[in-house]
Amino acid sequence: MTVPAAIDFYFDFSSPYGYLMSEKIDDLAARHGRAVRWRPVLLGPIFKVTGGVPLTQAPVKGDYAKRDFMRSARFLDVPFALPPNFPVSTQHAARAYYWLQDHDDALARAFAHAVYRAYFVEGRDISAQAEVIRLAAKVGAGDMKSPAGVTPIAEALGGAELKERLRAEVDAAMAQGVCGSPYVIIDGEPFLGVDRLPQIERWLANEGF
Amino acid sequence: MTVPAAIDFYFDFSSPYGYLMSEKIDDLAARHGRAVRWRPVLLGPIFKVTGGVPLTQAPVKGDYAKRDFMRSARFLDVPFALPPNFPVSTQHAARAYYWLQDHDDALARAFAHAVYRAYFVEGRDISAQAEVIRLAAKVGAGDMKSPAGVTPIAEALGGAELKERLRAEVDAAMAQGVCGSPYVIIDGEPFLGVDRLPQIERWLANEGF
Repeated sequence: MTVPAAIDFYFDFSSPYGYLMSEKIDDLAARHGRAVRWRPVLLGPIFKVTGGVPLTQAPVKGDYAKRDFMRSARFLDVPFALPPNFPVSTQHAARAYYWLQDHDDALARAFAHAVYRAYFVEGRDISAQAEVIRLAAKVGAGDMKSPAGVTPIAEALGGAELKERLRAEVDAAMAQGVCGSPYVIIDGEPFLGVDRLPQIERWLANEGF
Repeated sequence: MTVPAAIDFYFDFSSPYGYLMSEKIDDLAARHGRAVRWRPVLLGPIFKVTGGVPLTQAPVKGDYAKRDFMRSARFLDVPFALPPNFPVSTQHAARAYYWLQDHDDALARAFAHAVYRAYFVEGRDISAQAEVIRLAAKVGAGDMKSPAGVTPIAEALGGAELKERLRAEVDAAMAQGVCGSPYVIIDGEPFLGVDRLPQIERWLANEGF
């Protein structure tokens, strides 16, 4: 029996719908025997190519979006409060994620949940490097060193290597067609938005439709 | 017992997701004892305010959108083919709709279905005034005259009155926050996109959530 391929889940840590997806995708995938690869990206460089704008900054549509964030969270039964600063830059969080993932996938997953919940439940400033380091420590990465055993996360976050790593991840995502957050790819089939959960569910159940 | 208020359904005749909604909203509303007011608008003037762009014209996202149109149609079990010319101007169709609605709401509804299906099933050019007149005749409006009994639809379509009527309808829609298609308002609560059908269903069942 072949193991079905993992699902790719692309998201920006500042994306409300990405956060809602983060609370659902693992359980949904597990029910269909699938693993999920989490892949934080940055919507900034993606929107430069697609012409997208942050949802709440669009005239008229911005007001709708705020209302829809909250209603969609209630619909999906996920705690949510629009953070006082929204959206924010998430490069520190995304870089920390990849650094952690190179060490321990489960730890990176726990970190990603912690970042999203710190932002969309507690309203904390996840754009701050200090907050990112605090959250990494909270999930157990406080004493962790780089694979070579010398660099702790606080030091790695300022380094060129991790910056380049994230840039490459965003480029790779864009090469896959990623044009928003959340963006889920199942066996080559792309799904944009947490509102595609019912389609994702049917796709996984039937292996396409 | 009070009769629940009608639902407002705003759409552009060139909107794929609007078409998909048009095939679902009446039955869904009827199951919850609601009538639906259909209100064609023009995305052109709306996008001038919101900064929106036709989905298929956005870099990268355009390719995704085309795939999503087709998959969403399969998901909702609605026949769909992307028309050879997409998107197109729909002012003639929208004007004809309001002219017909002033005479007979059921006839206007039948005309709207005919326009959407001519475009998204048969690939006909619904931007052409002749096609709009043909579709009006097809649903039974061929001999129909204006309320004053003098103007047939072909003549009305060229007149200033009907142009002004559509302009006023679009303005009124924008004053209600309409920022895309389909846009459904239930007792003041707005829902953008056919992907909000599950939320609309729960909203109608529970009178909010």
